[in-house]
Amino acid sequence: MNFVEENDVVLIKLNNGEDFVIKIVKDGFLSVPFGTVFFNDLIGKEYGEVINFRGKNRRGYILKNSIVDYIFNLKRKTQVVYPKDVGYSILYLDLKPRDSVLECGTGSGAVTAVLSRAVGKEGRVITYDIDPENSKIAEENLTFIPFYNNVLFKTGNVKDGLKERDMDAFFLDVPDPENSVENAINTLKHSGKICIIAPTFNQVQKVLEKMEKMKNTIDIQVWETMIRNYKINPERLRPEDKMVGHTTFMIFGTKVVWR
Amino acid sequence: MNFVEENDVVLIKLNNGEDFVIKIVKDGFLSVPFGTVFFNDLIGKEYGEVINFRGKNRRGYILKNSIVDYIFNLKRKTQVVYPKDVGYSILYLDLKPRDSVLECGTGSGAVTAVLSRAVGKEGRVITYDIDPENSKIAEENLTFIPFYNNVLFKTGNVKDGLKERDMDAFFLDVPDPENSVENAINTLKHSGKICIIAPTFNQVQKVLEKMEKMKNTIDIQVWETMIRNYKINPERLRPEDKMVGHTTFMIFGTKVVWR
Amino acid sequence: MNFVEENDVVLIKLNNGEDFVIKIVKDGFLSVPFGTVFFNDLIGKEYGEVINFRGKNRRGYILKNSIVDYIFNLKRKTQVVYPKDVGYSILYLDLKPRDSVLECGTGSGAVTAVLSRAVGKEGRVITYDIDPENSKIAEENLTFIPFYNNVLFKTGNVKDGLKERDMDAFFLDVPDPENSVENAINTLKHSGKICIIAPTFNQVQKVLEKMEKMKNTIDIQVWETMIRNYKINPERLRPEDKMVGHTTFMIFGTKVVWR
Amino acid sequence: MNFVEENDVVLIKLNNGEDFVIKIVKDGFLSVPFGTVFFNDLIGKEYGEVINFRGKNRRGYILKNSIVDYIFNLKRKTQVVYPKDVGYSILYLDLKPRDSVLECGTGSGAVTAVLSRAVGKEGRVITYDIDPENSKIAEENLTFIPFYNNVLFKTGNVKDGLKERDMDAFFLDVPDPENSVENAINTLKHSGKICIIAPTFNQVQKVLEKMEKMKNTIDIQVWETMIRNYKINPERLRPEDKMVGHTTFMIFGTKVVWR
Repeated sequence: MNFVEENDVVLIKLNNGEDFVIKIVKDGFLSVPFGTVFFNDLIGKEYGEVINFRGKNRRGYILKNSIVDYIFNLKRKTQVVYPKDVGYSILYLDLKPRDSVLECGTGSGAVTAVLSRAVGKEGRVITYDIDPENSKIAEENLTFIPFYNNVLFKTGNVKDGLKERDMDAFFLDVPDPENSVENAINTLKHSGKICIIAPTFNQVQKVLEKMEKMKNTIDIQVWETMIRNYKINPERLRPEDKMVGHTTFMIFGTKVVWR
Repeated sequence: MNFVEENDVVLIKLNNGEDFVIKIVKDGFLSVPFGTVFFNDLIGKEYGEVINFRGKNRRGYILKNSIVDYIFNLKRKTQVVYPKDVGYSILYLDLKPRDSVLECGTGSGAVTAVLSRAVGKEGRVITYDIDPENSKIAEENLTFIPFYNNVLFKTGNVKDGLKERDMDAFFLDVPDPENSVENAINTLKHSGKICIIAPTFNQVQKVLEKMEKMKNTIDIQVWETMIRNYKINPERLRPEDKMVGHTTFMIFGTKVVWR
Repeated sequence: MNFVEENDVVLIKLNNGEDFVIKIVKDGFLSVPFGTVFFNDLIGKEYGEVINFRGKNRRGYILKNSIVDYIFNLKRKTQVVYPKDVGYSILYLDLKPRDSVLECGTGSGAVTAVLSRAVGKEGRVITYDIDPENSKIAEENLTFIPFYNNVLFKTGNVKDGLKERDMDAFFLDVPDPENSVENAINTLKHSGKICIIAPTFNQVQKVLEKMEKMKNTIDIQVWETMIRNYKINPERLRPEDKMVGHTTFMIFGTKVVWR
Repeated sequence: MNFVEENDVVLIKLNNGEDFVIKIVKDGFLSVPFGTVFFNDLIGKEYGEVINFRGKNRRGYILKNSIVDYIFNLKRKTQVVYPKDVGYSILYLDLKPRDSVLECGTGSGAVTAVLSRAVGKEGRVITYDIDPENSKIAEENLTFIPFYNNVLFKTGNVKDGLKERDMDAFFLDVPDPENSVENAINTLKHSGKICIIAPTFNQVQKVLEKMEKMKNTIDIQVWETMIRNYKINPERLRPEDKMVGHTTFMIFGTKVVWR
């Protein structure tokens, strides 16, 4: 069961640091500057095995495609939401078995996949995008990694109001969250939680002002995550020279009857 | 279905910032310096409603108990693993429907709960602790939040070797990871992933040296996460004066056939 | 020349972490819970020597009082400017031999001392405070550390305009920098530099808007510094658990003829 | 007195972000892709004035060359010490009027210049490098910015021992600080201070072990500084996407008679 089958989506990781997320179609191949690998040779291999490129002794590995590889490999037009931020917000949203969660906008589907995994087989994810084209691309993207069959793709703009109610959680990632936060909170059940993505301080300010006025959200928190990775030489252990300086701020809140 | 029932575990959040995770037993009550709330009055209330303390007009809310409230409210002897770190590592471990994941040690059960949620109803979590007393406490802790019935508590020391094999992922959080990492990796299937908690640089160094020698792990990464929270006054937006300076480093790797 | 003399201001550092900045007056003494040290015993000692407290074997050291000890030991009503921020801004302001620098407001005099040292014997520091009482306290504070006799204390509010012109640099640390930045820049010579202390994002925003309108400042930069300190156990090297999360943002600019 | 004179070293800053530190020699010129500026046209201009490139309406400014521009503009073979680190260490070393400070190694002379400014006209900087060629280049570099005539360039290796004694402060920036720290501390007077540059954790560990054994240094501190800069658009205020992840750790200590 840990063997590559036809039509698996796999991660091919070369020892020069490059990697590729590809579907192992019959008679297919992957050509890189230093050689070619034929997919028929890969079918039946164990995941984690070495693959050799014909004509060169450059090495690679065939691996299961992970959600982080997927998130970072996607060619997207939309702004990236980083694993560091998504991981943190999933915990804060307290997603759990059987929860119903709303997402706006769908974007590349990366967060959608994480939400799907977090609420489980009996949970439900409803994800809106204003552009049906985006929804279509996201649906295709999601065929690349395992997730539950619990996602509903819809077209619509949270600014116009959404008809969903009694949701357990909301993940709001739209360009002008200050104009959407009220409608988003309206979809939540009492004790439900929201996470709002806001890359600039001006957005944080405006969202906080809106939440202040609504008087039905408590435990409002604004967080920023930073991550730093390290050179892995144990003789010269030190952080990498460069790091990501900013992705977004995250605003959290819990809906109550009134404040 | 969003109403408080007898024997629910709830979060009571006071407007002075204090909160309590308690079980709503019949005829029970919660006494705080400024008043008392009787549980019989709470049964039947909607989650998110205001609760009033008899004799004082101090306000509180009755909320669903979230995993983050749970993680931070636990009285534990063991070192805390922070949501910022757990959230990140869950994504990196690529936990997904039907995965089997191993954890050492169980500790308070906080991470166990997160793992249980991440692998879903058909997944499997095996969690070891050297002290059966810990396992018992963790099992009790887990009754406080929803998770899947997919967890097996075991007593044992990863340093003595574990008999499990073909695991998808391993979360290793023990006092001397350098002496456990080899046995931990041995339980993984090829293409399986490990996350190692290592609070000091000396541990990171020693773990990296061990992984180097094993020659069956690639994509080794060392990460550190930092989080900063903000004062939520939109007129005077700024980070809080103090922040957490350090929790742990996290070492990740993917097992392969040979490197 | 490295010996304690009467009337020296010294730092007494106890091995429990406490320290005291005190003046060694004749017949004086310092009493702490575990003993007393008599100043007559200290006169003539070498700096760096151990001092013993009569009746207890608790140790201490007599040291030169440094500007960092001074900055952190001051009992002040005004907001602290941290060494991390001051050190950075001194370099950015490019303070050098013979420069003239303006400071508003004087506060405790901590930055005043740093500025005095930075422009040297032939340089000049003019420091304004709206409260003459502050200026007096700052002047007294400065008797505790060596600096140049190049400081002029004045009373006045930068919001009313300052009559100084052709200054090389300006260090602006007032409660509402957005209302002072224009007058501050007016005192600078062309190619002169300003550093503005702004603890909140709202202030940064408003100051940037003002500078934008003035059209005579280039190379506008907004910086934030963070510092983290480490437990010094070489066997368990790791950052301290807590760190400072925020002090201030710093806005820098260079005045030009027009932009 | 704020006018450009022949042989001044100036900073020419273009409005595309590029800048040049150059000496205004008679009949000289600066050619960049979009035009040429002739130095004879610059002599007599006020600092801060606009300069126009013949044939294009691209703008630039003629500015005083600052120490930060100098530090970042130097083409160096040696590792950069960042303003954030230098600014902080100058304060911690408590450099003040009339101090004597030692530096190893000289490198590009950037820190040398900062030290020279910090101890003033009557202070003294002695700076060693193992390579006399480096000393020569550093001396030339220093002609580009104002500093005091208080610097002595010497050739030598701190590992072989230095004959200087009774120094107020030491700035140690060499490739293997663990082998030099003892000799460095030996040059200090009691109550004197040292700053050690150590980019990797392994170096920090070894230096701490050495200092531990010497038993004559107290108040040992290990610090790391981080800086983040912000996009200066007041409508979309946010940190830059990338930041520097690491430069170095700094180890500080104060020498005493015995510990």
